[in-house]
Amino acid sequence: MSLQLLKALIYQSRARGVFYHLHIATWSEHIASSAHSNLFFCTTSSHAAASPTQPRTWGSKKQNRNVKLRAKAEDFIMSNPEIEAQLAPLRERVQEQGNLVRSLKETGAAELDVKKAVAELKARKKILEDKELALTPSLVSFDRAKMEDLLKRRFFYDQSFAIYGGITGQYDFGPMGCALKANLLSLWRQYFALEEQMLEVDCSILTPEPVLKASGHVERFADLMVKDVKTGECFRLDHLIKQALEKLLKAKDATPALQAECEDIIIKLDGLSKQELADVLAKYSIKSPLTGNDLTEPIEFNLMFATQIGPTGLVKGFLRPETAQGIFVNFKRLLEFNQGKLPFAVAQIGNSFRNEISPRSGLIRVREFTMAEIEHFCDPTQKDHPKFGNVRDEKMTLYSACNQMDGKSATKFAIGAAVSAKLVANETLGYYMARIQQFLLAIGIKPECLRFRQHMSNEMAHYACDCWDAEILTSYGWVECVGCADRSAYDLGQHTAATGVRLVAEKRLPAPKTVEVSEIVPNKQALGKTFKKDAKTITEALAKLSLEEISRAEQDLNANGQYKLILADGSTHELGKETISVKHSSKTVHVEEFIPSVVEPSFGIGRIMYALLEHSFQCREGDEQRCYFTLPPLVAPLKCSILPLSNNAEFQPFTQKLSSFLTKAELSHKVDDSSGSIGRRYARTDEIAIPYGITVDFDTLKEPHTVTLRDRNSMKQVRVGLENVVGVVKDLATARTSWEQVVAQYPVFEQQEATK
Amino acid sequence: MSLQLLKALIYQSRARGVFYHLHIATWSEHIASSAHSNLFFCTTSSHAAASPTQPRTWGSKKQNRNVKLRAKAEDFIMSNPEIEAQLAPLRERVQEQGNLVRSLKETGAAELDVKKAVAELKARKKILEDKELALTPSLVSFDRAKMEDLLKRRFFYDQSFAIYGGITGQYDFGPMGCALKANLLSLWRQYFALEEQMLEVDCSILTPEPVLKASGHVERFADLMVKDVKTGECFRLDHLIKQALEKLLKAKDATPALQAECEDIIIKLDGLSKQELADVLAKYSIKSPLTGNDLTEPIEFNLMFATQIGPTGLVKGFLRPETAQGIFVNFKRLLEFNQGKLPFAVAQIGNSFRNEISPRSGLIRVREFTMAEIEHFCDPTQKDHPKFGNVRDEKMTLYSACNQMDGKSATKFAIGAAVSAKLVANETLGYYMARIQQFLLAIGIKPECLRFRQHMSNEMAHYACDCWDAEILTSYGWVECVGCADRSAYDLGQHTAATGVRLVAEKRLPAPKTVEVSEIVPNKQALGKTFKKDAKTITEALAKLSLEEISRAEQDLNANGQYKLILADGSTHELGKETISVKHSSKTVHVEEFIPSVVEPSFGIGRIMYALLEHSFQCREGDEQRCYFTLPPLVAPLKCSILPLSNNAEFQPFTQKLSSFLTKAELSHKVDDSSGSIGRRYARTDEIAIPYGITVDFDTLKEPHTVTLRDRNSMKQVRVGLENVVGVVKDLATARTSWEQVVAQYPVFEQQEATK
Repeated sequence: MSLQLLKALIYQSRARGVFYHLHIATWSEHIASSAHSNLFFCTTSSHAAASPTQPRTWGSKKQNRNVKLRAKAEDFIMSNPEIEAQLAPLRERVQEQGNLVRSLKETGAAELDVKKAVAELKARKKILEDKELALTPSLVSFDRAKMEDLLKRRFFYDQSFAIYGGITGQYDFGPMGCALKANLLSLWRQYFALEEQMLEVDCSILTPEPVLKASGHVERFADLMVKDVKTGECFRLDHLIKQALEKLLKAKDATPALQAECEDIIIKLDGLSKQELADVLAKYSIKSPLTGNDLTEPIEFNLMFATQIGPTGLVKGFLRPETAQGIFVNFKRLLEFNQGKLPFAVAQIGNSFRNEISPRSGLIRVREFTMAEIEHFCDPTQKDHPKFGNVRDEKMTLYSACNQMDGKSATKFAIGAAVSAKLVANETLGYYMARIQQFLLAIGIKPECLRFRQHMSNEMAHYACDCWDAEILTSYGWVECVGCADRSAYDLGQHTAATGVRLVAEKRLPAPKTVEVSEIVPNKQALGKTFKKDAKTITEALAKLSLEEISRAEQDLNANGQYKLILADGSTHELGKETISVKHSSKTVHVEEFIPSVVEPSFGIGRIMYALLEHSFQCREGDEQRCYFTLPPLVAPLKCSILPLSNNAEFQPFTQKLSSFLTKAELSHKVDDSSGSIGRRYARTDEIAIPYGITVDFDTLKEPHTVTLRDRNSMKQVRVGLENVVGVVKDLATARTSWEQVVAQYPVFEQQEATK
Repeated sequence: MSLQLLKALIYQSRARGVFYHLHIATWSEHIASSAHSNLFFCTTSSHAAASPTQPRTWGSKKQNRNVKLRAKAEDFIMSNPEIEAQLAPLRERVQEQGNLVRSLKETGAAELDVKKAVAELKARKKILEDKELALTPSLVSFDRAKMEDLLKRRFFYDQSFAIYGGITGQYDFGPMGCALKANLLSLWRQYFALEEQMLEVDCSILTPEPVLKASGHVERFADLMVKDVKTGECFRLDHLIKQALEKLLKAKDATPALQAECEDIIIKLDGLSKQELADVLAKYSIKSPLTGNDLTEPIEFNLMFATQIGPTGLVKGFLRPETAQGIFVNFKRLLEFNQGKLPFAVAQIGNSFRNEISPRSGLIRVREFTMAEIEHFCDPTQKDHPKFGNVRDEKMTLYSACNQMDGKSATKFAIGAAVSAKLVANETLGYYMARIQQFLLAIGIKPECLRFRQHMSNEMAHYACDCWDAEILTSYGWVECVGCADRSAYDLGQHTAATGVRLVAEKRLPAPKTVEVSEIVPNKQALGKTFKKDAKTITEALAKLSLEEISRAEQDLNANGQYKLILADGSTHELGKETISVKHSSKTVHVEEFIPSVVEPSFGIGRIMYALLEHSFQCREGDEQRCYFTLPPLVAPLKCSILPLSNNAEFQPFTQKLSSFLTKAELSHKVDDSSGSIGRRYARTDEIAIPYGITVDFDTLKEPHTVTLRDRNSMKQVRVGLENVVGVVKDLATARTSWEQVVAQYPVFEQQEATK
């Protein structure tokens, strides 16, 4: 794989909206690891061995695992037979190409050939997926414009600074959006930070440049764009080309050959290199769609917002593009807080920023967003998880790299079976995948619209062991909402290399061992005499040399009588035998150092919110104008409404009392004593997803005082005593009871909404 | 007052660390309002009338109020008589100068004279306050270094990016700091957003320039600095001068005259203008303290972090310096959400950023910080508050502008009395002040270290009616932690003026009235013919003209036959009589529009946290190395520890069971099963403020199973049944029961910590 392709893949993984780590490696590191890369493809041989309706086995040791898979795997997720019949030829085309890629890799074909084959594979996958989505009935019936109108009208969220013309890619959350978000985050804390006893941290957003250089973001966190040579208007290159070619192929005089050519490029766009994209621009003479002016060559635009920290203008900083780096740079403090013990997990909720060239798709691609990230640090040789037993039977929809290459659909597995079969790399990764699923289902994501898609080798960083995205099906297609990656020791290693601070843990050896130690012994007097004020810096730098470097120093001293020390600032000093010597000794050690591995679940809160809103959007049968959200009480922005039947003054004391009781019970609620029929007010509270409504009516005035309690989803009502109703709502809102149980316990109230 | 002074005061209010709104006005607005400014000084006459031990009355209508004040006001907050004796001459000097300022203002003295007198007044106030603090015993005994060492060692918070050398003014919150902050914010939500049914929002951090131009931040949110002419090193001007003069006056050859001169300047620094500061620099030939190089002239450095939004480099944006503007620009949406009704309050928690020139004092002056702000919108003629009755008797320590001018200390008032006496401008402001106090006391701020200081007229924006800071006493002196200001209609007015979008509310008139209406009627055909594609923009602009502008247009048309329309982009169009005409009509209106007033409580979360940590820091008597924090259970980072007496395997099932019960009860906790005596482990949990500890010991193994429960503050223990202990901890952690009640109910466990 060429550096070009590597970069293209990085772009492309972001182009698809991956919001978690950029997976970056230096080229040399990449080469060093490429021996492993086949691991992430099913081999052709294993493929040939499996029956067509069985999932692919995975890499080496295949026979053993194959048996387990056959035993444990559930059925494929299949559409109905008619739809499958339409999809069958497309699936076949993917499989055919998948086999080609495998065989090219196995036979060590030229990079360019592999690359082309992979691009074609992705193109075929995309055609298959588009067709699948086009045939999905729920997506066809969903009316996005209608939902967006409601979200805007009741200010769940809306464009920021709209009275100033607005800024694309920035949103303000109004009262309902903000409460929904706060409830989601509170539940997230409970599911992860509390339940798993994680260490939660809150790190700075403004990040100095060296940190993001080490992480790779300064060099490579970029998208390609072109500028109008006259006006300076910018266009994201892939979007621009797609738009231009779509126009071309729809033109009246477009020949079938031209149409086919354009379609082919559009499908492969994601996989094209900078040069290839430039060639497309030139070939079709693409101009600015706004002015018709010429465009510049493609430019790499770094997606981080840059600023200056402090007044000098010399300290460059960025708004963090992810929260994770704050955790890595604090690793030593956190390990110490945990009394030196592994494993432990660190959680962080916070805002990150990406200067998208052309943000779109509402909350899905924005410039400012909230993430919730977890870094689970563990011994790389011990990736089992003590609580894995709790989730072993959790049924997951897994869309393996293998199935993707074979044109197959996702498959249901118990996570225990998937880990046993090594489809999911280890227990820790599997545990988090299961917990992610439990969380997403608890907040109200539809189970049939959730899948975990495994990264194929060409999307995954070389150092990652395995990576699965929780994807949620929305009207924008499958959207990556949570990433879950085993990132090995990469991040801590990068910061160690950049700072010289060893971000490592220690573990006790089974038995003490004797090791040879080499160290550089500086002759302080001689150093001081020769290097004056630099002597201190030199001595410090010598103390930090790696074992390899010390051995090189010894060789140089023996061979040339001197060793050239290069300092962090780039300056070099030639040290002679009179200033340093190398000492060898042996010592008994009881512990060994290692760089911990990191498993990283990373949640895009805005995307999850958006998907949740889509999944819970409904209109009343027979009255398409009455729309509402079926958000579960746990996350609903407000838990309850209080509606006096009319503005009769006698109702007021009851309304006030109920409100104060609800406040004491920490139940967020809304009193709507405006005029308007009770039915209309119910509809208004439905719109903002309030799950329960208490109505004060004339019967409330009589003793024993009672009120009606209404359920948003079923519109059913029961009659409950005034003194009980707050307790009932509390139980409902905290999921300690269900509406069905309430209906069983209290008399149903039959009066219709419309008649009131 | 000159513009120079106005600016100086703005600098100075920030220089003292005010973290909320910059109070900005254009000069003309300032002049227009200066008639009111005496309101914020006690008049000399009222002063003369009051007895020396009674608080000052306030502005006009003084006699009536004075009576009420005498009736309701509590005693002054007095130090003991010995201390008071030392302070008396200093108090007198302040009073003397306060009287001078009053009389200068009343007699309409020259600006320059008032300005000088105010500077001297502030200088004397500072001497008084410094002396008071120096005599405060609790501050003398507090060991800040010891507390900071603990905070760092147990990673409550620490400098960000320390392994990269760190950045001043940025802090990362570790597990305990983050949990404390989250608990504070959660309680804040409960106290304000939930209890007052506020609309909580979550707005963008990145803010486009025009928004912050309208708010005044682009032009005036600046500090003065100087640069080393050779190295470019920056110094905050006031800090630099102070440092240089302090060095001068301590020099061996310093004459008494020079010393007095230096001291005088240091005290008055806050009040000096840019030119005056430049003069000081020149007079004492102050050079760079690092290199001895010359320094530049003073430069205004804008404290906002600038960046570019989007790829073009043409959209300038800033990181918001406060969260409030996000609320103001959403006013229309929020009013609509509230069904057009006033009053309503909007809350927001979020991060803000200030590029301090030289951040210091730990969490008190930082570059990135969390705020919690409330904007309460109300009819300017109706500032009473429906819930004021609930807080009327809340006793508050009020440090009025008047007392400050008289060299008196703060005074205890019931807030009801303070509002009745018009010492606090209105009920809404008073209500929030009382609620702020209740919140601060609930989280553990010491009541004797909390006061509300009123802004004097020279600190307050001209448009503000009244402004009080909740100040908390720390080892850094009195620190402003919450601002509470009545900002009148200023902010909405500014954004209305900048955007043309009318940020107003409506109210029903007592009776309908007939009004004359003037409107511009465009002749669309003629406009289209003359202005082609600009006609639409022109028509839209005409529809937005104010009444004054329409009347001017009419005059111009009559006088010159044409009207020159200036568009937002600066272009002008000359419209003749054939294109527009002015139509007059009368219509009956039932409502009138008005710009709502804003009362703004604004909380600096980091400062409150820091003060809270200082107030709760303790060392065990007789063992000064055993330090701990007495944080109330409600906000303590973790609620409970579980400590098995030893690593005996039989304890493990009990430990695990307790942990899972605590998790189910949503109680954050920490299991410490490390080796080390139980006493040592208690000490470790005390350090991170865990209020309760459960110990599993050999008696736990016997039936009925029991454990010990230990209280951090008293170190007392009780013996509780295993099945009850989680419920007891839950009740303690949510303040439903007290430790005293627990001790009364369960047998005391006498075994000493040290003997275990």
